[in-house]
Order: sequence, then structure tokens, then C-alpha cells
Amino acid sequence: MEIKLGIIGFGFMGHEHANMMQTLDEISLKAVCDTDTSQLEDAPEGVERYTNVETMLEKADINTVIISVPNPLHIEMVTKCAAAGKNIICEKPAAMTVKEFDEMVEIAEKAGVHFTVHQQRRWDVDYRTMKEVYDQKLLGDIYIIKSQLYGFNGNMHDWHIYPEMGGGMLYDWGVHLIDQIAQMVDSKILTVYADLKNVINKNVDDYFKIIFEFANHITAEIELGTYYLTPKRAWFIGGSTGSAVIDGTFRAQGNTEGKIVRTKHLLESVPGKLTMTSAGPTRSFGEPEPGLLYEEELPEVHTEHRDFFVNYINARKGLEEDAIRLSEVRRVLCLMDAVRKSSATGKAVEFEK
Amino acid sequence: MEIKLGIIGFGFMGHEHANMMQTLDEISLKAVCDTDTSQLEDAPEGVERYTNVETMLEKADINTVIISVPNPLHIEMVTKCAAAGKNIICEKPAAMTVKEFDEMVEIAEKAGVHFTVHQQRRWDVDYRTMKEVYDQKLLGDIYIIKSQLYGFNGNMHDWHIYPEMGGGMLYDWGVHLIDQIAQMVDSKILTVYADLKNVINKNVDDYFKIIFEFANHITAEIELGTYYLTPKRAWFIGGSTGSAVIDGTFRAQGNTEGKIVRTKHLLESVPGKLTMTSAGPTRSFGEPEPGLLYEEELPEVHTEHRDFFVNYINARKGLEEDAIRLSEVRRVLCLMDAVRKSSATGKAVEFEK
Repeated sequence: MEIKLGIIGFGFMGHEHANMMQTLDEISLKAVCDTDTSQLEDAPEGVERYTNVETMLEKADINTVIISVPNPLHIEMVTKCAAAGKNIICEKPAAMTVKEFDEMVEIAEKAGVHFTVHQQRRWDVDYRTMKEVYDQKLLGDIYIIKSQLYGFNGNMHDWHIYPEMGGGMLYDWGVHLIDQIAQMVDSKILTVYADLKNVINKNVDDYFKIIFEFANHITAEIELGTYYLTPKRAWFIGGSTGSAVIDGTFRAQGNTEGKIVRTKHLLESVPGKLTMTSAGPTRSFGEPEPGLLYEEELPEVHTEHRDFFVNYINARKGLEEDAIRLSEVRRVLCLMDAVRKSSATGKAVEFEK
Repeated sequence: MEIKLGIIGFGFMGHEHANMMQTLDEISLKAVCDTDTSQLEDAPEGVERYTNVETMLEKADINTVIISVPNPLHIEMVTKCAAAGKNIICEKPAAMTVKEFDEMVEIAEKAGVHFTVHQQRRWDVDYRTMKEVYDQKLLGDIYIIKSQLYGFNGNMHDWHIYPEMGGGMLYDWGVHLIDQIAQMVDSKILTVYADLKNVINKNVDDYFKIIFEFANHITAEIELGTYYLTPKRAWFIGGSTGSAVIDGTFRAQGNTEGKIVRTKHLLESVPGKLTMTSAGPTRSFGEPEPGLLYEEELPEVHTEHRDFFVNYINARKGLEEDAIRLSEVRRVLCLMDAVRKSSATGKAVEFEK
């Protein structure tokens, strides 16, 4: 089946999607729709332009839609597109609440249309690199995973400054960063402890720290700040046989400025014998002797956001499973609820048993 | 009153203290004591050597002791020294438990001797620098304080590998790092959330993360790992008008490889107008335009561990207050209990109301 696409909501992400479609032979972008005509001005040539979604669904020659309107409007668009028999790719976060997501899934199922969510950051190079470290067990027993994203803007873009539009960084980026951790660590999440703050933005969160305690004894931590002023995208995985580090400039599809670090030997602590050093009381944390620590390269991965759509195409042809499972999307929304609850109460929230 | 000192326990820290005394005219080191004669071999010339503490307390011409024996022996030594009428400087952690500390304080009070604890890392240069940032309100409203210490040895030194000796990094370094945060932030601690792990050491903690939520809305975080393999001592303070960073090699008395970072302006988010950039979806976290972020120097401080003893001397002369208050030492021990409880239960522990 040829994929004939309409994009609903032609703002920032709508434009991103239109650009992406030019790289995919199997998907034909047929129409774009936005209530703001000024946003339609630079739609690609030959693509129909609509200001009314019902009209597009009725008239355009499409069988699939991408929904990239502000978050609270997703469910209305899903309802309309499902009723029109269109397959649906919905921007993240799919829904404002778990309940809303369940409704969407049910609506799509009843209408017999395919429904998925654009969790394209599962194909970030940095995440995939660290997932390789995890999957290949390159660090022995892992005890800590840290995922950090720091910016300098402070403010949110566009409608992301409005809580009622589903604004704030937990909805915008938290949904990706949580999804990555949940995909990486194949274990139940026992507890979620989180701290959400509005630092520069009055009404929406622009800083968060989230700590997951997994049943397999791994602790994972996510920290994001839009006003950190020391911009970077960083990862740290610590294990019993080494550490893996990514620490560098944020890039749209991920960065891999990193390394694996190991040590040639550990301190040999001989009971009863004192381990004096000339360095004085720096003995536990001073500089290592030259050559003690050595580096290895991180695994190489080949991945890009476009792979979301490659998988989408192959899955529609029956060649692959859908990479994004709705149960996974739902779990992330449940985790976001736990994050909000923990931050509001100051307590760790029990999540899975 | 001349301070005539005996050191009880002439191991690593005992030696450190003996060296320090050579820089202080007001304190005369008269005697050292250790049950292990091999440790006494390099005691300074002219200093009496004892293998029995009762004998030293009876015979040596001392009015003050430093107790630098393993942690569980502190209370026994405090009891004996107090009975002998000696003023007491006890190594940290003062006690294994809060109850034990309360007993020590009572014992010293009843005996009419002065009792204090060697919390010398209140004079670390990095901590004092960041405390200046805090005290001078250089960053507007502070939302996050992070204190990080990463090593490469993995194993503990000497008796620190034994739980029954009060081993592990929470006792050894946690007591300092918690004390620093508690001294910096002048607010009640509402909750403590912590994760203690044994990564390389079988029986004692060698990794911990601790999160304090303060009543003044500041979140403070301490993270220490002996097997992080990317050694450093780092601080981060984020506020509404800038960030302060220290990030460099651990040095015994602290390092100040850092800066204050500010931004010339924030993203101006104009509702209804999209903020497209040529960089594509990096708009929130990409690289800042050149010149947007600018740096300032951290405040300069002049401090060294020796200042603990300078304050001790001046306080004995009545010229200064004691810098270390027993109530503060007790609060840190209570916080360490909360840390253990949180880590064991997976819950945030309510601390002060």
C-alpha cells in the first residue's frame, strides 16, 4: 500500500516532517493543514494546503496522517482521522494523560486504523551508543545510568510556555528521555523520585531531575535544565568493570563525544597495613598514576531519526514489527504521572512490583 | 593556656595531625600513642611514644588530645580522655550513631572538658568558594546545588573496608560532604532521598547519591563514587541569574577550576509566532550564538585546613566562637541516619518540618 500522507499542524514539527518526507520514496506527502494560513505559505510545491482538517480528511488523497498540533488537540485530531479511516502517526507526547491515551488507542482500534507515536529519539545516536554498551554488557554489572541535557535558552518555544497546551519540558523532552531509559533497562521500575522546577518560566517546568530504581539494582537518573548555561548532552554509565561517558555539545540526532574508561588495577587494601602516600590526604581521590586509567572507543552505531519512518514503512509492508509499541508509550505516560506525583508530594512513588 | 597535645591513634590521620602541628606555634605536640609500635617509628623527634592510652593520659604532659583511632573506638577514647580531664578533638565521624554522639557530649560536659570534632573540610577552598557564591547571592534565586566527588581506586583504604570499623564512604566522606551542604544552605531540610551502593567493595558503600529538599526550595545533591573512573571534584550551583561551576581535579584542600556563567539574554518566546531556526530541531539545546554566554570569575577565598586549628586556638583564648558547633555535628549524624534509612527503604525520609 502506498503511503499517502497529510500533515495536520504545519508548525515547527510539521515542517520537520515535510522535509523528512522528501527523503522517503515510499511516502508521498499529499497535503498539509494548519488553521494559521501564514504557516502554510512555505508548504512544498504540489502539496495541497488546507485550513480545515475536516475538509482535508474529506478531499485530500491521503490514507495516513501525521498529527503535529499542540498536545491537547491530539485526541480531537485522532478522533477525526480515525473516523475518516486514516492511519495515524501522532507527535509525542501522544496524550496529556494516560486516560486520554487509552481513549485514543480504543478509538483507533474500533475504527480499524493503525495508530503510532513519533518517538523518534529512540534513534538518537548517543542513546543508541549507550544502549549498545548496555546490551553488549561492556561494563560488567551496571550500577548507575545518567542522562543529562542542559541548555541556555531558559524560556520555552511557542505554545510550550502554556501549561494548558501541554507545555513545559517534561512533556516536550521528558517523554523522550524517559522513553530512552525505559527502553534501555529491561527491568521493572520499583520507584520514581523526581523534582520538577519552574526556574525561568513562570508556569511550566524547565528543570527536572528524575531517579528510577530498577528491580535489577540499577539506578537511572535523568536531569534536564533549560537554564543550566553550560549546554551539553551527556551520558554516564558506571559498571563493575568500567565507565562509559558521552559528554559534548547537543546535536539534533545525538552526539558521541565519549569513551569507555577502565582501570588496570584497583587499590590493593591490605588490612593492617597503612597505605600512606606522599600526596597526603588526597589518597582516595587524587590524580591517578599515569597509565592506570585507559580508554576504549564507544561502540559504533548507525542510526538516524529517519529510521522511525523506515521502520514505519517496513512494518506497514509486514517486513518488520512496529518499533514503537503502544504499551511502551503508555508506560512512559504512567512514568510521567509518577514524576509529577513524586515532585508534588516530595515522596518516592512506587511504580511496578 | 598553652595547648599541649597528645595524638591517640598514629595511623594515616595521626600522622597528618603531627605534620600540621609543626605549623602551629600555639600547640605543642608532646606525645603520640598507637597500639601498633610500627606506626610509632616515624614519630617526630622529642615526642613521647606510647602504646597504651591510659599510660599516656597518666604520664604525658598534655592537656588536649586528638582522637584519630578507627570510628567505633572514639567513644571509648572520649570516655578515657574526659575522665583524665583532657580537652578533646575527635576525628570525624565523631560517632557511629547519634546515640553514641549524645553520650560523648554528655561525658565531656560532665567532666568539664572541651569537646569538638575535626570537620576540617569546612575549610576546603572549593566549598568556601561556592559558599561565597551562595552568601553573596551572586546567582539570584538558587534552585540547585550539586557537589560531586569521583575517584578511581574502587577499594577503600585500611580499616575502611570493614563495616564494623565504621568503614565505607558515607562515614568517611559523606560526613564532610553533607556537613558542607548543611552549612551552606541556611534552611530546614524537609526530605532526604538517597541511594547507597556497594559497587566494588563487598561490605561497605563506595557509591552514594543524596538529595536534600530544603524548605527554601533549593534542591541539593551529593554524589560520590570511588569507582567512577573519571576522577574529579565538581560543584554546580544553578540560580535565576546564572550558574557557578567548579569542575576539576581533586586536591586535598579543594580546587577552584571554575567560573560563573551568565547569559546576555533569554529566548524571547513570542506566543503565536514560531521560532524556526536553520539548525532544525536543535532549537532548544543547540549551541549558543557566539557571545551569548559570558563568564565571570568565582569569588576568591583564602582558606586552608589549618584554619580549623587556628579557630580552635583562638576559641580557647576566648577570641572567637568555636567554628564547629556540636549541634551541627549532631545534625549531620542525623542526616546520615536518614540517608541509610532512605536507601534501605527506597523512600524519601522526612527530616525537619
